[in-house]
Amino acid sequence: MSTGKRKVAIIGAGLQAGRRAPPVADDPAFEIALVVDRHEDRAKKLASRFGAATATATATDWRAAIERADIEALLVLTYPDSHAEISIAAFEAGKHVLCEKPLSFSEDEGRAMIAAATKAKRVLKCGFNHRHHPAVKQAHRLFTEGRIGKPTFGRGRYGIAGREGLAREWRSDPKVSPGGQLMEQGVHLVDLFRWFFGDMAEVTGMMSTTFWPIAPLEDNGFLLMKTGGGVVCSVHASLTQWINLFELEVYGDKGSLRVEALGASYGVEKLVFSEHDANGPFAYHTTEYRGGDVSWKDEWAEFTRAIDGGVDPIGDGVDGLRAMQVVSGAYEAAKTGRTVRLDGA
Amino acid sequence: MSTGKRKVAIIGAGLQAGRRAPPVADDPAFEIALVVDRHEDRAKKLASRFGAATATATATDWRAAIERADIEALLVLTYPDSHAEISIAAFEAGKHVLCEKPLSFSEDEGRAMIAAATKAKRVLKCGFNHRHHPAVKQAHRLFTEGRIGKPTFGRGRYGIAGREGLAREWRSDPKVSPGGQLMEQGVHLVDLFRWFFGDMAEVTGMMSTTFWPIAPLEDNGFLLMKTGGGVVCSVHASLTQWINLFELEVYGDKGSLRVEALGASYGVEKLVFSEHDANGPFAYHTTEYRGGDVSWKDEWAEFTRAIDGGVDPIGDGVDGLRAMQVVSGAYEAAKTGRTVRLDGA
Amino acid sequence: MSTGKRKVAIIGAGLQAGRRAPPVADDPAFEIALVVDRHEDRAKKLASRFGAATATATATDWRAAIERADIEALLVLTYPDSHAEISIAAFEAGKHVLCEKPLSFSEDEGRAMIAAATKAKRVLKCGFNHRHHPAVKQAHRLFTEGRIGKPTFGRGRYGIAGREGLAREWRSDPKVSPGGQLMEQGVHLVDLFRWFFGDMAEVTGMMSTTFWPIAPLEDNGFLLMKTGGGVVCSVHASLTQWINLFELEVYGDKGSLRVEALGASYGVEKLVFSEHDANGPFAYHTTEYRGGDVSWKDEWAEFTRAIDGGVDPIGDGVDGLRAMQVVSGAYEAAKTGRTVRLDGA
Amino acid sequence: MSTGKRKVAIIGAGLQAGRRAPPVADDPAFEIALVVDRHEDRAKKLASRFGAATATATATDWRAAIERADIEALLVLTYPDSHAEISIAAFEAGKHVLCEKPLSFSEDEGRAMIAAATKAKRVLKCGFNHRHHPAVKQAHRLFTEGRIGKPTFGRGRYGIAGREGLAREWRSDPKVSPGGQLMEQGVHLVDLFRWFFGDMAEVTGMMSTTFWPIAPLEDNGFLLMKTGGGVVCSVHASLTQWINLFELEVYGDKGSLRVEALGASYGVEKLVFSEHDANGPFAYHTTEYRGGDVSWKDEWAEFTRAIDGGVDPIGDGVDGLRAMQVVSGAYEAAKTGRTVRLDGA
Repeated sequence: MSTGKRKVAIIGAGLQAGRRAPPVADDPAFEIALVVDRHEDRAKKLASRFGAATATATATDWRAAIERADIEALLVLTYPDSHAEISIAAFEAGKHVLCEKPLSFSEDEGRAMIAAATKAKRVLKCGFNHRHHPAVKQAHRLFTEGRIGKPTFGRGRYGIAGREGLAREWRSDPKVSPGGQLMEQGVHLVDLFRWFFGDMAEVTGMMSTTFWPIAPLEDNGFLLMKTGGGVVCSVHASLTQWINLFELEVYGDKGSLRVEALGASYGVEKLVFSEHDANGPFAYHTTEYRGGDVSWKDEWAEFTRAIDGGVDPIGDGVDGLRAMQVVSGAYEAAKTGRTVRLDGA
Repeated sequence: MSTGKRKVAIIGAGLQAGRRAPPVADDPAFEIALVVDRHEDRAKKLASRFGAATATATATDWRAAIERADIEALLVLTYPDSHAEISIAAFEAGKHVLCEKPLSFSEDEGRAMIAAATKAKRVLKCGFNHRHHPAVKQAHRLFTEGRIGKPTFGRGRYGIAGREGLAREWRSDPKVSPGGQLMEQGVHLVDLFRWFFGDMAEVTGMMSTTFWPIAPLEDNGFLLMKTGGGVVCSVHASLTQWINLFELEVYGDKGSLRVEALGASYGVEKLVFSEHDANGPFAYHTTEYRGGDVSWKDEWAEFTRAIDGGVDPIGDGVDGLRAMQVVSGAYEAAKTGRTVRLDGA
Repeated sequence: MSTGKRKVAIIGAGLQAGRRAPPVADDPAFEIALVVDRHEDRAKKLASRFGAATATATATDWRAAIERADIEALLVLTYPDSHAEISIAAFEAGKHVLCEKPLSFSEDEGRAMIAAATKAKRVLKCGFNHRHHPAVKQAHRLFTEGRIGKPTFGRGRYGIAGREGLAREWRSDPKVSPGGQLMEQGVHLVDLFRWFFGDMAEVTGMMSTTFWPIAPLEDNGFLLMKTGGGVVCSVHASLTQWINLFELEVYGDKGSLRVEALGASYGVEKLVFSEHDANGPFAYHTTEYRGGDVSWKDEWAEFTRAIDGGVDPIGDGVDGLRAMQVVSGAYEAAKTGRTVRLDGA
Repeated sequence: MSTGKRKVAIIGAGLQAGRRAPPVADDPAFEIALVVDRHEDRAKKLASRFGAATATATATDWRAAIERADIEALLVLTYPDSHAEISIAAFEAGKHVLCEKPLSFSEDEGRAMIAAATKAKRVLKCGFNHRHHPAVKQAHRLFTEGRIGKPTFGRGRYGIAGREGLAREWRSDPKVSPGGQLMEQGVHLVDLFRWFFGDMAEVTGMMSTTFWPIAPLEDNGFLLMKTGGGVVCSVHASLTQWINLFELEVYGDKGSLRVEALGASYGVEKLVFSEHDANGPFAYHTTEYRGGDVSWKDEWAEFTRAIDGGVDPIGDGVDGLRAMQVVSGAYEAAKTGRTVRLDGA
């Protein structure tokens, strides 16, 4: 007995699955038909919470999703080291993929994923959910409309306090994760600055591991990057930011946009927009987006829009690759002491 | 008829003289005996506002101050390109000097100033008044007492909107000023991070000139610097920060300190101190320093304390030189694409 | 087949049931065994979301809950005009009651509810969930410990924007609701001030109906009330507060406590605690309670603690009656122009 | 030798004279020709700081100002119990008066002052400098333009911490001052609400003396007042507000205006303007007026504009009387327990 709904498989039933499953479950056109996790109990638990009214299957091998012809799309929410293998198999089987960031473990893998999606004419969306936060979206809209004029600089700060046991998480294993906190959270800021300002031409950075025993990965990562047009952006990602912080600042010659917080443990999401008036007092317009985090719902909507429209989604595979290249470049610069040119290959 | 007060000369009767003259005028032990400015009317105006009850002299050549044996100390508030010449002559004449930042036009000049002061056993204090803001002082006290533990990182943002005619000011002339906004305002943040964390071992940076026609000087300067112990600090100084901003953040493994604003056009000066508690809700202690800017008064008090005690002042010539070297290193890194090692010479 | 869990009935499956059901459903010792609502579909919907794994029954007549001997406690979440009838029947059947505020439609009804609970030796807790917000609880703890000294005054502001169709809701029907916004939201502030300062001896007030067509009920209600010891509190409740606001301020001769917001659409819940220092700069300690509203869970825990311990809960029937009397007194004062004495009967 | 400038006398060389003298001294058309104070040294000190280049006279009897024909206007900055006598004598001598608030010690005196000014066709401006704060002015402008629509309510909070010795100040002497903190600071808020909403029809209030030993004067005064059109305003003035606070909130059916702080020890003066949008997220526009308090300069400008134009100033004698009557009404209501009708006589 079929529900007639379009079918989705979730690969990896961890924290992010708990965030990305509800929009699928709430979408009248889709249902979660399969949940895969190495730990069967985790798969079963997620399936029972967000599965379809008809029994949702579970599996411990992601190939189960590839093999089912009725599954149209995969949410690849596994560790970075398996993103490429799973996604490429999915594309070859004609499925669409929404893949958690960072896009892949290596740049080569990322390029292979993009090639596979292109060849299969399937959608590859990178899980940059921050593009779907309402304050960020509204900031991008105002920027695109020219409300702050020509860019002058960007600044981003993103940090959390870590938590007990962090050093034993997969995130802290350099065989699984392509980087430390700059790759984990900082990559969102890098992606957002690229969304506003375009590709970066060069990057430098400094890394440190000051508190959490996760070397060679960094608990504090800093980068400076510059567009071909000469606009510099600063990004800092921290695991010793004891009070959760997210701030994105975009400045132009006519004004500025600042996104503060992301809801939940970051505080009320806000957009602060200021139009520069050289003659008046300091003034700015604030919009507060109180209540729950709606970025996951909007991300899902964009993914399905791209599938149905046969178009590239906002935050596609190339965006995923480029952001990763910037962070990798910062790592290289930190090691060699040389600013890295980014050639866009 | 003498007032019996100790005598001070102010060299350069511009904006900063208007800030530094009142504490001298209000000090019962000192008086402003001479004001020098290339523009006699400016000298006269300052003298009439802050001069001693007995007539305060004015002059258009700073040598007038050197020649007067009764003058004990000079406030050197001229453009950076004349700091060294005036200060060295003052030391040779046995006078003390409080010199506006940046300390000098070149590093060699800075070293010569320090050598002259040392030889003459006179006080050389660099005009880093930010060390004398009450929120900064209290932050430094808490840091020194170990309240935030071992350093993990530093972040600083400092910016203003510029003003009409900026491009025609001396600040925008590379023959007079050793740098753009990173040297003008950013140097304060560099100095403060050195005060908290000690000497920097390396620095990199990126510069841009995006709005104000002041190239080759930057209107937005970014640097990353690292102590020998591996603590990274980020500094951004901007002339396109449309709403005046000052923020200094110092993080350690037990907590954090944040200084916001500097009074006046920056808003209420605040210190936000947080002790990290992994188990409790986010919490922090805020102290507000409402009312006027008291840093100038405290800077003057420290200068006279050093004179009377025959000791090095807080923020001395070496501090002035070191901060300047960091900023110069950032300029070099921005040009060459190579991180600069700072060897402390 | 029994789950062995203790059984609870929810009477009234509206908005507040959606908030109070989850803590019961999550309590390993209890289950929602019955949901009653005049509209059966609403009852069924709530039962399906929060009911026990074994089928949860539904009914359209609250007497179904009274008749079931296995049901130990009722959550009475109906309109105020039926609180007394349902609760009294529940007590007579030996059940405990957690009753939504305002406690009842009339003071006489409230007194009868208290008498019935006392006679049956059952728990009557009034749904003052605000006492269970962590910032409020912590404020009360600090107050009780004497951290702000002897009370000097209280101030409270509470408001929302209303919503389309408000005039047609039961809240706007004077036959169902004993008051307007001062009774609806303001009663929470009155209850909290009583919790901190003790009983009020007199009250005056002014009401207005300025925007929403709900006369004779007020959309803006103001009251001033005074304890026997002479401490005055001001309360304003508004339906034209276009940006949701909750603020409770408690001042003493040694300091102050301020609770801001309640999470969700009110913004991040905060406690701001200041110890007065006549000689230092202004300073205060802020605790942020980011994330979801936990008051419902704590309210439920307190209710079961009282049941199990055979003790009066925090926020009992007498508290419910007294707060209502203060608001009713303000209504009377607004009509007669005479301050009302509250005699505690 | 005359300067040709128009001449002003300052009566009372206390704290407020230090605020009101500079705008006169800086006005190219006026000069302070005479300073009167019972304590000659205070008069001399003020004269030396702000007097004209030609010697400014001093006196210990205010009649010296009346007798000088060349003096055109008086700033009456004495205690309230002498406002009427001095002002009436000034009007009879053909002079204009800017009189500190509260306008007078009694309502009868206030009425006599207004009558004398009217008869003499001279300007009487009450020292409600708060009408001249830029945030308040801008709020009034937006209100008058209908930007927040029809009024729904007003709320005002104003408080300070007091200071050592307060109980021995003239303010604490009921023979000199017509009221406690509600008359001292609260009267500004009452005046502002009248400016926005028009005359008040009724008032009630509660007073308490909780900390400062100044009974029968109150250290915390609360009032509720209502316009003939039914708009209620709440005002609280406190001497136990340990962190200085000023907040004026004006709500209408289309939006709201909030003025926060007054500069200096109150923090950065801000105007927060919100246009209600039932469908969008919460949003508001903030204007910050950083830097010094400019209200005194604007007050002086308005006074001279009224003199030169032969028109009533903003904040005239009637405004002074009406605001006082509201506060006096609140005192009466607090004593009698009866709301007081204000008949506008």
